[in-house]
Amino acid sequence: MNKLMISYLLGWILNIIAALMILPFIVSLYYKEACGKYFILCSLVYLIIGYIFTRKRPKNERFFAKEGFVMTAFAWLLLSIVGCLPFFISGSIPSFTNSLFECISGFTTTGASILENCGKLPRCMNFWRCFIQWIGGMGVLVFMLALIPLTGGQDLHIMKAESPGPNVGKLAPKVKMTAFYLYAIYFALTVLEIISLVLAKMPLYDAVCTSFTTTSTGGFGVRPTSMAEYSPAIQYVLSVFLFLSGFNYNFFFFVWIKRFKEAITMEEIRGYVIIFWLAVIFIMGDILGKGYNMEESFRHAFLQVGSILTTAGFASTDFDLWPSFSKSILVLLMLIGGCAGSTCGGIKVSRILIYLKTVKKELEQLCHPRNVKVIQMDKKSISHSVLRSANNFFIVYIMLFAISVLLISIDNFDLETNFTAVASAVGNIGPGLSLVGPTRNFDLYSDFSKFVLMFDMLAGRLEIFPLLVIMSPSTWRKK
Amino acid sequence: MNKLMISYLLGWILNIIAALMILPFIVSLYYKEACGKYFILCSLVYLIIGYIFTRKRPKNERFFAKEGFVMTAFAWLLLSIVGCLPFFISGSIPSFTNSLFECISGFTTTGASILENCGKLPRCMNFWRCFIQWIGGMGVLVFMLALIPLTGGQDLHIMKAESPGPNVGKLAPKVKMTAFYLYAIYFALTVLEIISLVLAKMPLYDAVCTSFTTTSTGGFGVRPTSMAEYSPAIQYVLSVFLFLSGFNYNFFFFVWIKRFKEAITMEEIRGYVIIFWLAVIFIMGDILGKGYNMEESFRHAFLQVGSILTTAGFASTDFDLWPSFSKSILVLLMLIGGCAGSTCGGIKVSRILIYLKTVKKELEQLCHPRNVKVIQMDKKSISHSVLRSANNFFIVYIMLFAISVLLISIDNFDLETNFTAVASAVGNIGPGLSLVGPTRNFDLYSDFSKFVLMFDMLAGRLEIFPLLVIMSPSTWRKK
Repeated sequence: MNKLMISYLLGWILNIIAALMILPFIVSLYYKEACGKYFILCSLVYLIIGYIFTRKRPKNERFFAKEGFVMTAFAWLLLSIVGCLPFFISGSIPSFTNSLFECISGFTTTGASILENCGKLPRCMNFWRCFIQWIGGMGVLVFMLALIPLTGGQDLHIMKAESPGPNVGKLAPKVKMTAFYLYAIYFALTVLEIISLVLAKMPLYDAVCTSFTTTSTGGFGVRPTSMAEYSPAIQYVLSVFLFLSGFNYNFFFFVWIKRFKEAITMEEIRGYVIIFWLAVIFIMGDILGKGYNMEESFRHAFLQVGSILTTAGFASTDFDLWPSFSKSILVLLMLIGGCAGSTCGGIKVSRILIYLKTVKKELEQLCHPRNVKVIQMDKKSISHSVLRSANNFFIVYIMLFAISVLLISIDNFDLETNFTAVASAVGNIGPGLSLVGPTRNFDLYSDFSKFVLMFDMLAGRLEIFPLLVIMSPSTWRKK
Repeated sequence: MNKLMISYLLGWILNIIAALMILPFIVSLYYKEACGKYFILCSLVYLIIGYIFTRKRPKNERFFAKEGFVMTAFAWLLLSIVGCLPFFISGSIPSFTNSLFECISGFTTTGASILENCGKLPRCMNFWRCFIQWIGGMGVLVFMLALIPLTGGQDLHIMKAESPGPNVGKLAPKVKMTAFYLYAIYFALTVLEIISLVLAKMPLYDAVCTSFTTTSTGGFGVRPTSMAEYSPAIQYVLSVFLFLSGFNYNFFFFVWIKRFKEAITMEEIRGYVIIFWLAVIFIMGDILGKGYNMEESFRHAFLQVGSILTTAGFASTDFDLWPSFSKSILVLLMLIGGCAGSTCGGIKVSRILIYLKTVKKELEQLCHPRNVKVIQMDKKSISHSVLRSANNFFIVYIMLFAISVLLISIDNFDLETNFTAVASAVGNIGPGLSLVGPTRNFDLYSDFSKFVLMFDMLAGRLEIFPLLVIMSPSTWRKK
């Protein structure tokens, strides 16, 4: 284990966070909020500690897969703690557990909150809350790799550990360039949404915060009613950007370099679009006439499907009051999630496609045991190790799910609440149903359950294995 | 597709069912119930049709994996229909859908009922209801193979398709002998339980019916309150036999041929015993003092864990009133199920062990990509195809689960009801929670949902793939 290198990189994380905290400080200056000083305070402390660890680049930069996982897991634990301190020391969120919960919910782009009314937070604090979703969406380590590339392609281990999806498609031959392209697309989407929202007459502050949490599919908002109070025009703009945020970023990259055919023939994009619009149609049909007219049922179905499938978690209406069928569709979408190579959580559309293909192959193989077929995606055959990983991910996902539901059931809430709370945490969504529905929050749970859910959020964001690696005794055994 | 051979074997199924219907007829004679005549009527009709199809053994006995699946799926559909007719034409269960539901719930050893009070059924009808669980438990086709073995080892295709578990361990080199051993153990367990229950002062009729539904892990009873009204002594006897019924029958076979060491070192048995007693201890701790004293909490935890983990589905108390933690444990046990090579439903302990081992291997492989390890069970390495099948089974299981919950949610009951109704159907358990809890029944669902649940019960019993094979267009495509 190259501990020097790990602490060097963790030091860089501190430096980056210190720099990023300037932004909420500027916001506090603009709104003349005194609590902005805590950002400068934290920033300075982090910078000093970060400086100590990054003074000297280690001579031995060797870095293997194991270090990649360990580094990623520790980086996210570090982020969670340093990110939450401004909430806690400023007293904006009085309990440390709650501050940590809110921060992890932010960085992992979950969007589950323990706040009854996020509108009561100082503006700079709420800006920070939304901004950490934007930072967490594309991944801090990916950002870091664009700044300080590692030699010898070892940075790919980190990128693999942090990026969601069954296989990390490098857009460019070098990780640094890939990270640059990803952030460029991400930035462009965010700016485009800010402009569109402002044109739809959303206040600038709201538009910036909302755009941060849309493109990162985080789902934090500036109002306690999420998106319900905004005009239909704003809701439509949001829905369109939610829809786009669920796309695999390879799509945008192909469009960028004008390889349109490759963009529109991507199987995952097609699968995503089909799932998306089927869900909209079914929900629309189900809720039409039940308190919603034609336009409303379309608008709410569009926004809610966009919000849940991309695992953002905005709400334009209290969908906990919808009929069971629509609610069950939403729960199913929670499990599926958006595309790999996006900022979404969940199992990911590409994995679902892989599963469907393996099941089809299994059926054929059962009937014709001697036929051997290869599973393909986008006309390329999928390697055995990708298949194996996808299968194992599914198994671990469901196991984590089951164990978490069991653990938080100690608080004695009903199964629907516990099940959707875990679905929401592991899938990085935000609201669940019943007692954790869109008009409620997660503060009802005990500290123990909150820690279980925090673990789930981190596990969901990092796709479980990095956390399992640092918890596995064999990682720490000396050979 | 060797259609002649399939219809020949289906004809034999009819003959066997015709013969088995003599038993409830004898019961009706003893209790002087007029409705017993319907058994003779059905029996005669089935015998005539069966005779027509089995008159001549086809010359071409060739039979491949595909035919094995198709044959098994059709045999179970046939069983469902011919088994339910006595209920329907006698008017004991007035609706055909309900008769079919009750019969499928019987053969698949689910034990979910649409009857509000099974005590109101004529005794011969209730005997038949419990007896079909006993028939379905070990598998009708396995029984048939003992009677009319196929040549050239092709009967293994049928046995594989009907028997639960990741790999069918043949106890003896020939399928016929394996079937004989399995039925011998099954019969011995049943007789032993009848004697024990009678010694514990259960009426003979109740003891016979209950033993049928214990060893088959079916869970139908003769009283509307299931096991709640019987004495603690009877409940303990039942619990012990439930515990034993969850064992892999290989265990009993090893004991029989005095290979005790192999019996007690079976990994699956150890896993099962650990899961079983951990669940008992946790539930006991959770419900102690909440309306139950020490002895009661142990007794109910023992019986309920035995009943749910083995997927029988008896109830000694209304566990829907238990705290969330205990209920969540029960839901988890519903998904796990008993051992492979038993009469239990669910995912099976051996598969859970395989999953745990694959996840452990994946973790090691992530950290040390060049190490290649083989997964072992009982010191034998597990073949790639068994692993692949186990993984695919899990994926299909969860998919079937999700789609079923979605479909029955159209009836607009709550998620807890729908989720546990499907868990109960796919896992062949019986009761669920909330509106389908142990004191309720499944009659609240619409006919559409009942058909979804019937499909789930059959899919759970046959481990899904046989039903998918007959639904797959490629099976019926002519080459």
